[in-house]
Amino acid sequence: MSVDEQSEAGKSGAVTANAQWGGRFAGGPSAIMREINASIGFDKAMWRQDIAGSLAHAAMLAKVGIISATDETKIRNGLTEIGREIEAGTFIFDDALEDIHMNIEARLSERIGEAGKRLHTARSRNDQVATDFRLWVRDAADGISAQIAALMLSLATRALEYADTAMPGFTHLQTAQPVTFGHHLLAYVEMLSRDRGRLADARRRLNECPLGSAALAGTSFPIDRKMTAAALGFDRPTANSLDAVSDRDFALEYLSALSILAMHLSRFAEEIVIWCSAPFSFIRLSDAFTTGSSIMPQKRNPDAAELARAKIGRVAGSLISLLTVMKGLPLAYAKDMQEDKVPVFEATEAVSLTLAACDGMVRDLKASERQMRTFAGSGFSTATDLADWLVRVLKLPFRTAHHVTGRLVALAEAKGTDLAELSLADMQSVEPGITNDVFSVLSVEASIASRTSEGGTAGANVRQQAEAWLKKLAPGATGAAA
Amino acid sequence: MSVDEQSEAGKSGAVTANAQWGGRFAGGPSAIMREINASIGFDKAMWRQDIAGSLAHAAMLAKVGIISATDETKIRNGLTEIGREIEAGTFIFDDALEDIHMNIEARLSERIGEAGKRLHTARSRNDQVATDFRLWVRDAADGISAQIAALMLSLATRALEYADTAMPGFTHLQTAQPVTFGHHLLAYVEMLSRDRGRLADARRRLNECPLGSAALAGTSFPIDRKMTAAALGFDRPTANSLDAVSDRDFALEYLSALSILAMHLSRFAEEIVIWCSAPFSFIRLSDAFTTGSSIMPQKRNPDAAELARAKIGRVAGSLISLLTVMKGLPLAYAKDMQEDKVPVFEATEAVSLTLAACDGMVRDLKASERQMRTFAGSGFSTATDLADWLVRVLKLPFRTAHHVTGRLVALAEAKGTDLAELSLADMQSVEPGITNDVFSVLSVEASIASRTSEGGTAGANVRQQAEAWLKKLAPGATGAAA
Amino acid sequence: MSVDEQSEAGKSGAVTANAQWGGRFAGGPSAIMREINASIGFDKAMWRQDIAGSLAHAAMLAKVGIISATDETKIRNGLTEIGREIEAGTFIFDDALEDIHMNIEARLSERIGEAGKRLHTARSRNDQVATDFRLWVRDAADGISAQIAALMLSLATRALEYADTAMPGFTHLQTAQPVTFGHHLLAYVEMLSRDRGRLADARRRLNECPLGSAALAGTSFPIDRKMTAAALGFDRPTANSLDAVSDRDFALEYLSALSILAMHLSRFAEEIVIWCSAPFSFIRLSDAFTTGSSIMPQKRNPDAAELARAKIGRVAGSLISLLTVMKGLPLAYAKDMQEDKVPVFEATEAVSLTLAACDGMVRDLKASERQMRTFAGSGFSTATDLADWLVRVLKLPFRTAHHVTGRLVALAEAKGTDLAELSLADMQSVEPGITNDVFSVLSVEASIASRTSEGGTAGANVRQQAEAWLKKLAPGATGAAA
Amino acid sequence: MSVDEQSEAGKSGAVTANAQWGGRFAGGPSAIMREINASIGFDKAMWRQDIAGSLAHAAMLAKVGIISATDETKIRNGLTEIGREIEAGTFIFDDALEDIHMNIEARLSERIGEAGKRLHTARSRNDQVATDFRLWVRDAADGISAQIAALMLSLATRALEYADTAMPGFTHLQTAQPVTFGHHLLAYVEMLSRDRGRLADARRRLNECPLGSAALAGTSFPIDRKMTAAALGFDRPTANSLDAVSDRDFALEYLSALSILAMHLSRFAEEIVIWCSAPFSFIRLSDAFTTGSSIMPQKRNPDAAELARAKIGRVAGSLISLLTVMKGLPLAYAKDMQEDKVPVFEATEAVSLTLAACDGMVRDLKASERQMRTFAGSGFSTATDLADWLVRVLKLPFRTAHHVTGRLVALAEAKGTDLAELSLADMQSVEPGITNDVFSVLSVEASIASRTSEGGTAGANVRQQAEAWLKKLAPGATGAAA
Repeated sequence: MSVDEQSEAGKSGAVTANAQWGGRFAGGPSAIMREINASIGFDKAMWRQDIAGSLAHAAMLAKVGIISATDETKIRNGLTEIGREIEAGTFIFDDALEDIHMNIEARLSERIGEAGKRLHTARSRNDQVATDFRLWVRDAADGISAQIAALMLSLATRALEYADTAMPGFTHLQTAQPVTFGHHLLAYVEMLSRDRGRLADARRRLNECPLGSAALAGTSFPIDRKMTAAALGFDRPTANSLDAVSDRDFALEYLSALSILAMHLSRFAEEIVIWCSAPFSFIRLSDAFTTGSSIMPQKRNPDAAELARAKIGRVAGSLISLLTVMKGLPLAYAKDMQEDKVPVFEATEAVSLTLAACDGMVRDLKASERQMRTFAGSGFSTATDLADWLVRVLKLPFRTAHHVTGRLVALAEAKGTDLAELSLADMQSVEPGITNDVFSVLSVEASIASRTSEGGTAGANVRQQAEAWLKKLAPGATGAAA
Repeated sequence: MSVDEQSEAGKSGAVTANAQWGGRFAGGPSAIMREINASIGFDKAMWRQDIAGSLAHAAMLAKVGIISATDETKIRNGLTEIGREIEAGTFIFDDALEDIHMNIEARLSERIGEAGKRLHTARSRNDQVATDFRLWVRDAADGISAQIAALMLSLATRALEYADTAMPGFTHLQTAQPVTFGHHLLAYVEMLSRDRGRLADARRRLNECPLGSAALAGTSFPIDRKMTAAALGFDRPTANSLDAVSDRDFALEYLSALSILAMHLSRFAEEIVIWCSAPFSFIRLSDAFTTGSSIMPQKRNPDAAELARAKIGRVAGSLISLLTVMKGLPLAYAKDMQEDKVPVFEATEAVSLTLAACDGMVRDLKASERQMRTFAGSGFSTATDLADWLVRVLKLPFRTAHHVTGRLVALAEAKGTDLAELSLADMQSVEPGITNDVFSVLSVEASIASRTSEGGTAGANVRQQAEAWLKKLAPGATGAAA
Repeated sequence: MSVDEQSEAGKSGAVTANAQWGGRFAGGPSAIMREINASIGFDKAMWRQDIAGSLAHAAMLAKVGIISATDETKIRNGLTEIGREIEAGTFIFDDALEDIHMNIEARLSERIGEAGKRLHTARSRNDQVATDFRLWVRDAADGISAQIAALMLSLATRALEYADTAMPGFTHLQTAQPVTFGHHLLAYVEMLSRDRGRLADARRRLNECPLGSAALAGTSFPIDRKMTAAALGFDRPTANSLDAVSDRDFALEYLSALSILAMHLSRFAEEIVIWCSAPFSFIRLSDAFTTGSSIMPQKRNPDAAELARAKIGRVAGSLISLLTVMKGLPLAYAKDMQEDKVPVFEATEAVSLTLAACDGMVRDLKASERQMRTFAGSGFSTATDLADWLVRVLKLPFRTAHHVTGRLVALAEAKGTDLAELSLADMQSVEPGITNDVFSVLSVEASIASRTSEGGTAGANVRQQAEAWLKKLAPGATGAAA
Repeated sequence: MSVDEQSEAGKSGAVTANAQWGGRFAGGPSAIMREINASIGFDKAMWRQDIAGSLAHAAMLAKVGIISATDETKIRNGLTEIGREIEAGTFIFDDALEDIHMNIEARLSERIGEAGKRLHTARSRNDQVATDFRLWVRDAADGISAQIAALMLSLATRALEYADTAMPGFTHLQTAQPVTFGHHLLAYVEMLSRDRGRLADARRRLNECPLGSAALAGTSFPIDRKMTAAALGFDRPTANSLDAVSDRDFALEYLSALSILAMHLSRFAEEIVIWCSAPFSFIRLSDAFTTGSSIMPQKRNPDAAELARAKIGRVAGSLISLLTVMKGLPLAYAKDMQEDKVPVFEATEAVSLTLAACDGMVRDLKASERQMRTFAGSGFSTATDLADWLVRVLKLPFRTAHHVTGRLVALAEAKGTDLAELSLADMQSVEPGITNDVFSVLSVEASIASRTSEGGTAGANVRQQAEAWLKKLAPGATGAAA
């Protein structure tokens, strides 16, 4: 029952099993078989990869003498023409031919006759689909990686701009210590950099060519698997034919990497939503990234951020889908594996959209520096600086310094002041050794400037990090977006 | 990056971030916003539900005097016409109008002018979409329930046919005791019956109408929520407006029920796959449910069973998707919730196809009774019957009877015979009390016939159960498929 | 490698496979078998259920004459003594006996001899464990349901207290319309009520007794399954012996219900965290539910809320665990099913703790009514009231009223005032028909008071709903916590 | 409600909310807070890592002059003593001290006084726990990797032994073409090799040291993060303090790698279960890896394989748990992250046990070569060889050769013979060009021997691959188990 038919069913209010059957499976049981079996509805997305694989295979067959050079030319021209038909939208996809592989091969024989029937020598759909899908995932990983790099570039650009902008650093969403907004944005650059690393590792590991594994056992034809592997940009052929047609690790590893990436984006999106709320008002998104309302013009619903936050659902669901599908499958190829594509396609689209939306928001957002500064300076946020001063200057053990600071904060709280507004006498009533020098560490600016430890939030650190990233990600640089 | 664009990207081999951007988001960042935000691509599946909801709402507005009878007539006629346009395929869905609700409302105003602008009085998209989606899920649950009943009917029919057909009962996939094939099939009827129960409970719980909750707080208009609820077949209005627009429990409970159902079907499908393997050869599926091969005519790949086994992946993935989306969302409506529909639509389609495929296979399969009988009788499968005889007749404690039986089986194994082929003298060498009567319990048929305890595998039990189910599921009976 | 051993391994820095082997599996491969196979480490949690099941079974065996009354008395006394030993902590659990069932049976024979060896007549571990686990899950569902009722009672109590307390109602975490805090709290009561309904349905569905299904095929002994079912509080025996020993639906349905419940609690916890943040400051938790810091006394980390938010992870993970385990298992019992208990035990503990923590926070929290009121009244939150006035009084179509309101808000924004601060002349410059009466709907209090539609946020509604819940949940009432 | 208490609750049959409360949370609400908050119950598994981190931190503090050499000596000695206490089991873990970090620090101050209070200078629990947990995961990844290598070694050893043993190669669990058992076993070596690659990549990526990031912002103390990083075996310090305390990617990537690994093992386990079934009888496991039954001695339940198949549930559940926990968490540290450890600990234990069980089974299993050979040769399994002969020798296009083969198989089927048993005349009746040479390709042995393409199943290939792996994995070799 498709979504559309379901609506039909709902229409009458009375759905009988037979009616449903009659509606959908009028042609008898075997219609169901075709319905559940056909993959052309989604696997046509791999048409470029399928043609590329067949071109490489045919060239190899000719090279080793399994087919003639003439046949190879016919096949090459035929496939090229079919590619043009598909691009032009004139190719007719036929459900009865099940999948993209049979659709293209059937059309080839239709166009070039006998030669087309020689293309499938020394291969099988099992190694063919494994090859096509690896190519697709490799392309997708490259595309996502480029989008990540673009987002990193945007984040680093804004981080440089806000390298000295104070904001409250939260733990438990409670004010902890002042940090800079630039530092906060660069934290996401670090996460995204790991995401690119995972995709690069996955790409390297998948980059072996299954073509030539045939149905499951290899072939008796004298094929040259290194040649096809090289032609398709693979590093080498896969080493075991049974494994090659049974393996979907590359899809699972790719989905795992996307899941962690989507999780990072969900965190960023959550922050955008919170920062845009009236009580926070830390940032403002323009009309381009909010939806308004004709009656509540103040309403700038951060819809893009909310959807970006939600997409982790689709991506994690896709990962679990494919892991579940693969659980307990005996070797070699099983039809279950046809359920590998939709999760990968959907997760790719979800992540790609989310990356684009996040990039747009990063470039669009405007920080409310005054509001951020206000909260950065409230809530005794420099209490740690005071404790550190007691350790550094008065040589108190840290746990003791903590205790003294606690008493000073309690005093300030009782007086309704900030730490910096206590008098020296007040200070000394708790710890006689305190001198006027202590006040030098109690401002937001002093606190931030002092955090110069490697990776710390000091403006100088942030500028240096941001510039390093900008250089690394600049067009043309190694590791750049392209 | 959509699946299709990804293929485009893969074409050139060199994907740059900007190229991707340029391709998709040519219109600038706000194009991304529209892209990620629009739901019309999938929520148009709810058009019938949306029109039904609006008809009920308009009738109520007129009844309580918020709009005039004339306006209500115009709205009713307008919506009816729009329904015809959609059915006829002439309605133009516009992405810029975001979703099905705005598409229909905009078209209504286009058709009937001023009156159309009064329809949205005292409601909001938040309660409107909650209502539409509940209606859709309710319809889907009814459709799936009817398909389950059809499958139960097929299983009970075949169970009656095979009520006395012996097969090896497995635990750990090791031969344990003889059972009947009919009994085995009825085990799935029990599972499916629980699945229907879960769907019925979910339906009952979801059957409250959110309409009239407005944006989140209710409304100041004197609406009659009981009237709209009744018109749409709901049992009552929802009790709290904030909850009503924030709640997606009904979708999660439905997906949970589908997940357990899909798990059941994956077990049945696994059995089909194993039973069709050459070493088992317990059943045979016709060409209608297998894919052959022009070179290996013996190959009857049970593709439908393999896909039925795999679909649990998609369904469990959908459940996790929506659970993840809903995690930690503050009240009330958040845009994240727009991610509720695709998982529900996809899981519904996957389960519906799987049910149809399983039903087809059940009706199609032919048991190889001889092969089943052979394995039912091998492997000392009636050893438990021997032990039970020792308890019943010789009054041995069960643990002692176990021990005696073990020694007898070892003896038979050493002699290369079955238990029934041991001589009485052999038997008595282990346990002197054994009499000739023992041989009456050692055949497959005797073993099965003796299992008359409630729910046991004896043929009489199976026939009784099968007939009870057939009666219960017969067209017209309460609990039937319709 | 256990967690502890892993630490050991990590100690030396050089872990060799053999060293690990040597360390753990010194006794040779079969030690691994025992290690992975033993379940006594966790299934001893079911000792009460196991004894209860055996008592019922023995009483039935005696009743129908399979064992003598004397034996039954011995068994009863023996099991009762064993129960006391376990309670007293003097029972010695033996890994070599694998599980709780064999541990207890072995001890019984040790204590009472021959009679103990008769207990296992006409049953098997397969139906025994299915019975025990159902009993455990039933008890757990009852306990969780009682905890939910307690939390509902606390929420309803606080809702009554805050029935008239204004707060900003959010959608998209953006100020939408004023609501009452009591109404907001009652939204969770509705969710929790559905959670209880799901548990009640699950309990009803699981309440069938597998005992007497034996290994998988039933038994030839003349047992009375209705008697054991009744003795254990089940509604009836299960109907199919193969299904009875293969079924874990009851655990999956229970975990599904817990997952949705945990999702609700994660939403409430997220709100607590946000409300406790400095910019919101909507509520305050006492020291009892926050962790402080000796140096930052202002820091009241809402740790309990954060953990409550996180627990959905464990619960959803448990559901996926068991769904994955059950995927594709052939009938009947398979050892895989032993993996059913830990997910259920862990999810139960996680949810129970979370409910207790939420209940504690609900009873502890103190609303900052002034801060809530401030945000409830800002951001043109009564713009909808203005639009509704235009519809109701001036008879404008709703879409037109929206448009007029939009212009008025823009005017107010330009003047830097609130809607209520615009002059009548200002109002009339946009819509001449507006009269002084409009100002009566623009206050937070008027807005809230007007939302009297069924389920709306008006104080009177909230009080009525809260009181209805308090009555329903009062100790002694049907549906109460007990 | 813990599992044990739940049993208590179940005992009385009547569970009231208050009773539960009273039982567990007698100390009032804050008892719940302690209960949900304490992590010492599980995080004590990290005691070695915690001590190692503190030793490195103290040495650095002394080196840069923040503490004195004397204090550092006291701290070093104190921590070493505490390590001995924990190893000896004399250390008293105190729930009130919450976690392993505070337990050890408190004990240190107890033992060495003032100096102990200086240890926590310039660090925070946030960076401390991040460091400890990375160390733990790194150790675990190393241990699992070594176990994988051991399993690969066992598989390659058996593969060499069975390099020429014919078995039916299945696709869709239908006989497709003959393969060798050695080739089949090596397919798993390939999978496991990728698993090790993923763990190695994850280890490399995690190998950055968070220590010195302090609470979230870095510190004003002149610490030397490179020194502590090097001392703990990290490649470098982390680059951004906010990211460092908020990041759990390393745990997620590790769990992803374990999930794919567990999936591989579930496939192998499924094959073991199927191969051990009576109809297949492809292999036999000894008593060491099966559970018998005193009454059914033929029963060799492959419990270890079933549990190995099931463990993917726990592992995938753990991955989903942590992904769900991390979804949407604002920076920086949140208490939610405390839910990171149990999933990682449990998944590690599950995978470690499963690897050990699989290794044991691989070394234990005995192939039934005759049974495998029988099925390898049945079902026209060499039909592809016939088609390939038609292509190679008669130069038929492959699709045409397929068609001819199909007709020949149909002929053989009609005659009730195998392909090799058809007469030449029979053959020529379908395709006149066929010569006696065709019979040379129709045997199982000829088929296998011909599959010499790279990665194909020919015995020579298998021996070469197996030997290459044995060399690579030999103790002392790079990539070996250690």
